[in-house]
This record gives sequence, structure tokens and C-alpha cells, in this order.
Amino acid sequence: MTVETEAEANARHAEKMKKHKASKEKLLAGKSADKGLLIVHTGAGKGKTSAALGMVMRHIAYDWPVGIVQFIKAPSWETGEAKLLGRFPDLVTLHVMGEGFTWDTQDRARDMAVARSAWERAKELIRDERHRLVLLDELNIVLRYDYLPVEEVVAFLRDEKPADKHVIVTGRNAKPELIEIADLVTEMTLVKHPFRQGIKAQKGIEY
Amino acid sequence: MTVETEAEANARHAEKMKKHKASKEKLLAGKSADKGLLIVHTGAGKGKTSAALGMVMRHIAYDWPVGIVQFIKAPSWETGEAKLLGRFPDLVTLHVMGEGFTWDTQDRARDMAVARSAWERAKELIRDERHRLVLLDELNIVLRYDYLPVEEVVAFLRDEKPADKHVIVTGRNAKPELIEIADLVTEMTLVKHPFRQGIKAQKGIEY
Repeated sequence: MTVETEAEANARHAEKMKKHKASKEKLLAGKSADKGLLIVHTGAGKGKTSAALGMVMRHIAYDWPVGIVQFIKAPSWETGEAKLLGRFPDLVTLHVMGEGFTWDTQDRARDMAVARSAWERAKELIRDERHRLVLLDELNIVLRYDYLPVEEVVAFLRDEKPADKHVIVTGRNAKPELIEIADLVTEMTLVKHPFRQGIKAQKGIEY
Repeated sequence: MTVETEAEANARHAEKMKKHKASKEKLLAGKSADKGLLIVHTGAGKGKTSAALGMVMRHIAYDWPVGIVQFIKAPSWETGEAKLLGRFPDLVTLHVMGEGFTWDTQDRARDMAVARSAWERAKELIRDERHRLVLLDELNIVLRYDYLPVEEVVAFLRDEKPADKHVIVTGRNAKPELIEIADLVTEMTLVKHPFRQGIKAQKGIEY
């Protein structure tokens, strides 16, 4: 064991932080492009929609309009999110797909028609100059069940998304084709989950 | 290749969804405990603070007061977050640690004193009955640099956090001792990052 005096520890720390700062500055100096991002939040962990909601709220903080299409109608969009976003009617355009969870319907043809109509709305919102950010919540689930052809969705996002527009796609099991064209992809990985310990979903946390 | 008729595909789908629904219901039926969670968002990916912010906003949507201690002063807390949270002065108590990024200061003793003072504030907010949720943003960074003893922080969160209070801790490199006592841990994993493609941090997305 090496014993270090307080002064030595402080000097070592100052040196380390100086290097850290220099490397941060060097990294940032090389960055300049400002562009609309295609962002994907995927993985089996929590926080995919919450993180998107955080970005939506940052936009709202700047008074920038956002468009949201909720592809899978979850309880959260009837309670927490709807209440919250309802406070900013001038800034938020919200389209909630009008049917329950897909696993409640057991009617593939109906699910596909509903997904199609939500996707058409999503395209309108993305094309609309007013919105800086469009959130396509749980679109990955729709793609996973092949309710919409991934080729069509990817082609639109790659070729027709305006260059300055941010689009966030959430949902587990993101298709590789989508990840391929995305700019920023984060996988939320489950390390520990309270459901496993007998704790149910809670208001304010999950919805 | 097996060719399946539309009717067969629909029947197979209905069966699959029915099973999915049954397993969801079974899972939920076993859950009943309602308790305050210790939540950790860690990992090198994006979305740790954004996801916490989403949960904060859900609380605000229900008119539930929240406390926030920002352990590392990031630009976001001077712009997007501050603007946003400033809209709800009756619901949000925000304490921003009064010094720049640790790698800007190069003064370990000062950083430690500031971290200590922020932690004392955090304890007050957690003990205060008014708040349902307390966010300790970037506390993991402070613990990583040993600005606060992890044993002390873990002992407080384990033994003194009121049972109905949610606490969210964010920051990469969460200490194993903290993960051990947490209820819900999500690791945000970097799959693809625009910094690597020469795109800088952007308003509304990162801050």
C-alpha cells in the first residue's frame, strides 16, 4: 500500500482533471455540424419513452412545437403524459392511435389499418415545418409485428425527413434497418427491475 | 418456404396475441406492493438525465412536488431544464451545485466541500414529506471521484429514505454498492452517437 499525502492527492487530482478538461475541449472543438437527428431508444430496460419525453419537454421549454404519435396506446398516454402535454396545447400536437394494446385486440387486420393511419399522420407531422421534433412512440413495436413495412418507414425517414428535423423512435427490438440509418441509438438495458420483486407499475414513474 | 394464407396468418396472430395477453395479465396479477423506489440510471449512453426528467415531469403532471439536486452543473440546467422547471415554482425545489464541471476546477478540496453541501441538501429534500420524488442528478460522478463516501450515501438511502419516496440517481459508472440496494436499475448503452459523426450537442436534445 502506498501512502499519499493530502497535498500529493490534490496535485494528482488537479493533473488528472486538467487532462480530462483538455480532452473534452479537443473533442468539442471538432464538432460543428448542427442537424436534425434520427434518434432511436430501444432495449428491454426502462426509460425509452421517459427519455423521449424529457427531450420533448426540453423543446417545450424553448417554446418549440413538437408532434407526437403514440403508436401503441398505453395507460400513460391517458394519464401522466396526456395531462402534462395538455398543459401546452399551442406547442404539442398529439395523435394517439385509437386502439388498445395490440395484444388486447387479436385482430391483425384492424391493427394494421390503425398502424397505417397513425403512420400517415406521422409523415404529415414530420413534413410540417412547424415542428422541430417529432416523437414516434413505440413505432418499433409496430415494425416488429410487421404492421408496417420497415422498408417504407426507413425510406421515408432517410429520404424525406427534413434535414433540420429531429425524429425520435422508441420501443424495444428496433429493426437493424432502422438502426442502420439512425444518428443516435441508445439501448436501455435492464439491470434490475422492481416487477421482479413484486412491485407493480407506479403513477409518476411509469405513467 | 411455407406459404400461408391471410386467414392462417390472422389466426396464428390472434393465438399469439391471446397468449401474450394472458401472460401479461398473469404477470400483473402477482404485483401489488406500492413503494418508493430507488432508481438508478447509469451507463455510457444518452438518456440518463432525460429519462429522469420525464419522470419528474410525470410527477408535475399530477401536481406532486419534486426535489432536484444537480450535483454536476451542466449547461442544460442553465437553459432547457431550468426554463422548464421554472414554470412550476410551486412544485419544484431545485438545488444546483454552485461550481462548474469538476474537470474545470482542478481543486479537489473545493469540489469535495461543494459535494458535501449538495448532499446535505439532498438529505433534507429526501426527508421532507412534501416531495414524492427526489432526483439526484449526476450523483454517480461525485461518488466515482470519491468526493463523498459511498458507504455514507448508501447507508442513508437504504436506512433513512422514507418508504414511500422515490429517489432517482443518475450518472455513468454507478458504484456496485448503490446498484446492490437499488430497486430499478437501467443501463443506457451507447449503440451509435452523433458526436462520433462530427455532430455537436444540440439545444432541445441534450440541454
